[in-house]
Amino acid sequence: MPDKMDYASAGVDIDLEGSAVSSLISSLTKSVRPSGTPGAPVDLPGGFGGLIEFGDHLLALATDGVGSKLQIASALNQWSGVGIDCMAMNVNDLLCVGAEPIAFVDYVAVPKPDPIVHAALGASLAEACRQARVTLAGGETASLPGIVTELDLSGTALGYLNKGEAITGENLELGDILIGLPSSGIHSNGYSLVRKIIEHVGASYTDPAPFNCASEYRDIMRFENSNADLTIGEILLNPTRIYCDPVVDLIKHAQSDDTAYSVSDIRGICHITGGGLTNLLRLHDTFGWEINDPIQPHPEFDWLAEVGGVETWEMYRTFNMGCGMIIAVNKEFSETIYHWLIQRMPGAKIIGKVVDNGRKVIHSPLGIEFSHY
Amino acid sequence: MPDKMDYASAGVDIDLEGSAVSSLISSLTKSVRPSGTPGAPVDLPGGFGGLIEFGDHLLALATDGVGSKLQIASALNQWSGVGIDCMAMNVNDLLCVGAEPIAFVDYVAVPKPDPIVHAALGASLAEACRQARVTLAGGETASLPGIVTELDLSGTALGYLNKGEAITGENLELGDILIGLPSSGIHSNGYSLVRKIIEHVGASYTDPAPFNCASEYRDIMRFENSNADLTIGEILLNPTRIYCDPVVDLIKHAQSDDTAYSVSDIRGICHITGGGLTNLLRLHDTFGWEINDPIQPHPEFDWLAEVGGVETWEMYRTFNMGCGMIIAVNKEFSETIYHWLIQRMPGAKIIGKVVDNGRKVIHSPLGIEFSHY
Repeated sequence: MPDKMDYASAGVDIDLEGSAVSSLISSLTKSVRPSGTPGAPVDLPGGFGGLIEFGDHLLALATDGVGSKLQIASALNQWSGVGIDCMAMNVNDLLCVGAEPIAFVDYVAVPKPDPIVHAALGASLAEACRQARVTLAGGETASLPGIVTELDLSGTALGYLNKGEAITGENLELGDILIGLPSSGIHSNGYSLVRKIIEHVGASYTDPAPFNCASEYRDIMRFENSNADLTIGEILLNPTRIYCDPVVDLIKHAQSDDTAYSVSDIRGICHITGGGLTNLLRLHDTFGWEINDPIQPHPEFDWLAEVGGVETWEMYRTFNMGCGMIIAVNKEFSETIYHWLIQRMPGAKIIGKVVDNGRKVIHSPLGIEFSHY
Repeated sequence: MPDKMDYASAGVDIDLEGSAVSSLISSLTKSVRPSGTPGAPVDLPGGFGGLIEFGDHLLALATDGVGSKLQIASALNQWSGVGIDCMAMNVNDLLCVGAEPIAFVDYVAVPKPDPIVHAALGASLAEACRQARVTLAGGETASLPGIVTELDLSGTALGYLNKGEAITGENLELGDILIGLPSSGIHSNGYSLVRKIIEHVGASYTDPAPFNCASEYRDIMRFENSNADLTIGEILLNPTRIYCDPVVDLIKHAQSDDTAYSVSDIRGICHITGGGLTNLLRLHDTFGWEINDPIQPHPEFDWLAEVGGVETWEMYRTFNMGCGMIIAVNKEFSETIYHWLIQRMPGAKIIGKVVDNGRKVIHSPLGIEFSHY
């Protein structure tokens, strides 16, 4: 029986990060751009950042990196997925406020440029642009041998929405239905813990995966065309799912005259990132969330929990556990929207509802709950 | 007499960087966003990237980092200027196409978050936002102990312009007048060479500057309130000048009915970055550039050239040499624009003109020229 592992013991001090970020933010003053002019900041309920005014529209910026998943990519010299991870982390955040992503820029810091690595990154970013339906509008590669010891990749996505159509969670109602969208694997969060578990069990990323990889509703990106067994590395580096299709199309459909529901019936959208299910708590100040029919987690989550001795509660506040995005919709249209979604993303599932339980997330089948992040 | 130093010997392989970036770009396919829709890419003469369509406007993204100047900030634990550097590198690029910067996001990668460092960065970014007149629309701090050994800082700026008012250099005419805007020091380029020279001469960043620091038209940001001699570190970390004021205001003035000239009389804008004067060559395919009355370089450039044994030619293709931005304007309005600019930025100066010399930059007083970058 291994020692219990958790995210904090993997070397990530969330409190210290929060304290550092708070320090930075508290140093900032109000924007110099007055309300009503391009670039004026827009404060929305739910604490969404990154929104600014632009005429009849709002523009939204999201910036994020791939994080320590890159260390596995470096170890294996496999870069075909990380451009997709980088794109996904940013555009999926934009979707949560109802913005359509339109452009992306990447930032790569390396100790020394390597044309072969960059060609692979370029191909990965091109595929990411195709999946997210955005223009790659620039990028920067910095050689910083005194600062980085291996490649760091981050990016910024730009999106837009119509004024008055931001999706923030403020219109949530009790009984709203939660539709979960399947993830493609671990996505891009929790890799400090993943790497610690792999090290702990003495596994190699090139080992065949010691578990049944069968998992519905996803493909694994192979490192090369091969009929050989999937490796642990291939499972762990499977790129993050980009949810632009179907979420952007759902919003456009709601805006159209083709349907009875409108954008205001899409009450909240949640990207399940580093905090796992606790991310839902950001969407509303008082309502709670009951997951009673969850999406089945991919086998790698079970394996990591087992060999790492990670408690179920810890798993669900660290990883997406099979469900990368949750959309809360008006109950009246939930079946319609669900049927629309599942045609575009097999594995989409009605997983629960908005409840009046004192701002908690309850995963009923497992009997676990979260009241803070 | 020290050995000759140049940028390549400082460990920056520009050819390798170019090759890596080419590899990345060649892997990219055409944008999936069709012409006429938000986010469709806009190709302009002069190779400006980062522009996309957005209704009656174009949006522009720029992404860049502070680079190895950060290593001096780390060595001295002095962060008050680097937020301004980061902002400047991005917004000054946006200005070159005639875009008004409106928003910015930062990306910080650290081995371990430090609230004190982040508070200083936050204050620096707040001052940068004030100077650039943009909204800080978000940011990300990543803890990546396996990837970075010290702090890396980059960012992305968003700007906009009216369709049809992009400033690209394509309307340049022979005889157009070059107005130089003074830099505040070394800005954020060439620091691999700077650091190598400092190491070569055995100087310490905390030594008093061994040269007369007097230099018109700039203030040095002191590390603390002090009447002590300026140190080498203070000179080297002086933040990059942000040119939004006066350039944005010049463009707005040109758009107004208050003046005889229009935006089309501002023919080209060049941010003097890592390539020094060679940056001008990007603005036009056939015309050349004659600098006959340059801005006086700051004393630190002379000192670095002398103690580092760096040839004059190398200095002018590595550093800004006192002039951080060059604006090419219609000769007919050049005196008017010059007088308008100098009231807002003392030290602005008419430095030369556009000539028909076979696409070269000639610095006449020094007798040096550049025909490629």
